[in-house]
Amino acid sequence: MNLEEKYFSNISFRERAIFEGGISMAALFHQYIGTPVNEKTVKNLEIAISDSIQLQPAIEMADVSIDLNRIKQANTEFNYVSLSGDMLDVKIYSKINDSLAIIRMEFIEELNYPLMYVEEIIEE
Amino acid sequence: MNLEEKYFSNISFRERAIFEGGISMAALFHQYIGTPVNEKTVKNLEIAISDSIQLQPAIEMADVSIDLNRIKQANTEFNYVSLSGDMLDVKIYSKINDSLAIIRMEFIEELNYPLMYVEEIIEE
Amino acid sequence: MNLEEKYFSNISFRERAIFEGGISMAALFHQYIGTPVNEKTVKNLEIAISDSIQLQPAIEMADVSIDLNRIKQANTEFNYVSLSGDMLDVKIYSKINDSLAIIRMEFIEELNYPLMYVEEIIEE
Amino acid sequence: MNLEEKYFSNISFRERAIFEGGISMAALFHQYIGTPVNEKTVKNLEIAISDSIQLQPAIEMADVSIDLNRIKQANTEFNYVSLSGDMLDVKIYSKINDSLAIIRMEFIEELNYPLMYVEEIIEE
Repeated sequence: MNLEEKYFSNISFRERAIFEGGISMAALFHQYIGTPVNEKTVKNLEIAISDSIQLQPAIEMADVSIDLNRIKQANTEFNYVSLSGDMLDVKIYSKINDSLAIIRMEFIEELNYPLMYVEEIIEE
Repeated sequence: MNLEEKYFSNISFRERAIFEGGISMAALFHQYIGTPVNEKTVKNLEIAISDSIQLQPAIEMADVSIDLNRIKQANTEFNYVSLSGDMLDVKIYSKINDSLAIIRMEFIEELNYPLMYVEEIIEE
Repeated sequence: MNLEEKYFSNISFRERAIFEGGISMAALFHQYIGTPVNEKTVKNLEIAISDSIQLQPAIEMADVSIDLNRIKQANTEFNYVSLSGDMLDVKIYSKINDSLAIIRMEFIEELNYPLMYVEEIIEE
Repeated sequence: MNLEEKYFSNISFRERAIFEGGISMAALFHQYIGTPVNEKTVKNLEIAISDSIQLQPAIEMADVSIDLNRIKQANTEFNYVSLSGDMLDVKIYSKINDSLAIIRMEFIEELNYPLMYVEEIIEE
C-alpha cells in the first residue's frame, strides 16, 4: 500500500508536519501527566519521554524540560509529585520532506493553561 | 485452572479485599488524571469512572466525587481543566467472600497529597 | 491578551483546524487506552470520551465508536478488557472560522496500526 | 499529624505492605500502558518506569521487564508499538516495618489477562 498517497495526499507536507507534531505533543501530555516524579528522577524522565515521542511518525527530535522549581513547590509529604501540565516546557520537531514544524507546549500563566502552538515552520 | 488456589491461597480474604481495592484505586487515579473536564461534563465523567472501575476483580461499587469548586478555581481560558488528584474523593468497595474493604482516596491539604487508605473493613 | 494574534498568526485557519484536530485525537488515544471496558459499559464510555474531547479548543464534535466484536474477542477471565487502539474508530470535527477539518483514527490491519489522518477538509 | 496513627492504625503492617504494593502495581499499569516503545527504547523505558514507581510510599524496589519478543511480534508499519499489558512482567517490593510484600504482575495466557497477585510475603 502506498500509505502517503492513500491517506495523506489531501494535505500539503507543511500541513502534515503540523498535524503529526500536534499529535505527538498531545500524546506526550496525556501519556505522562500523573507520572510520579521528584528532583532525583526528573532527568531520566525527561529522556524517557523524549525517546518515546521520537518514535512517532515524522518526529525528528523532542526537547522536554520539566520545571524543577515547580516540582519543589508542589512537593508533598511523600517527597514526590504527580507530573502536571504546568511543569512542562516541550519543543517537538516534526518534519515531512522539506517542511519542518516546531511545535511548542508551554504553560501560560495568563491563560492558566499549557498551550500547544506552532512556534515556527521552516521550509527549505 | 483454580485461580484462587494457585495465585491467592497465600493471603487471607481480608488481605485480598485490601489488595484488590488498592489496585482499583490506583487504576482509577492513573487512568483518569489528565482527562479534560468542566462543570457540564463532570457528572457523566464520575459515572464513566465508576462504571469502568467496577469491572475490576472484587469491586462491588465505586463512589466517585469530583469537586466542582476546584474545577471552577482551576478554570482556564478555554473553560475546562485537566482532572487532577486534588479534585477527587473516591470510595471503592472491594469484597472477597465475607470480607469487605472500603478503600478511600481523599486529598489531604496538610500532606498536599491525594491519600489512599483503608477506611473500614467489615467482616461478616 | 490577543491569543490568536500572539500564538496562531503564523498559520492559516485551515492549518490550525488540522493542528487542533490532531491534538485532540492523540489526547483521546493516550488518555483512554488502558481503560477497563466490557459490552455493558461500552456505550457510556463512548459518550464520556466524546464529551471530554469536545471540551478541547476548536472541537465541534467527536464520534467515538468502540468495536464490540473486538471487545468480545479480547475477552478475559474477568469479563472485561483494557481498551486498545485496535478497538477504536473515531472522527473528530475541528473548526477554526470557516475551515472544518475532519480527523479520523481507524485501525488499519495492513499496517497493524491505529492510523490518524485528515479525512476531509471543508472550507466554506 | 501522625499519619500512621490517623490513617493506617486499622490494618497490620503486613496488610499495608500488600495494600501499597497493589497500589503501585496498578499505578504502573495505568500510567504507562499506551507508551510508544521499540527495541531501542525498551531498556530506558524499563528504568524510567522503575524509577517512578519507587517514589511511591513503601516501595523499596521495582523490577520491570518488557518482553522484547512481544514488541517484535506486535510491530507496526512505523516500527514501534504501544506498550500493552501482555508485554509486562513486574515485581514490586513493598515494605512496611518488617513486612515485605513481593507483588507480581505477569501475563497469564490461560486467562488472557495481566494478573496482579502477591507472590511472596517475608516477615522478619
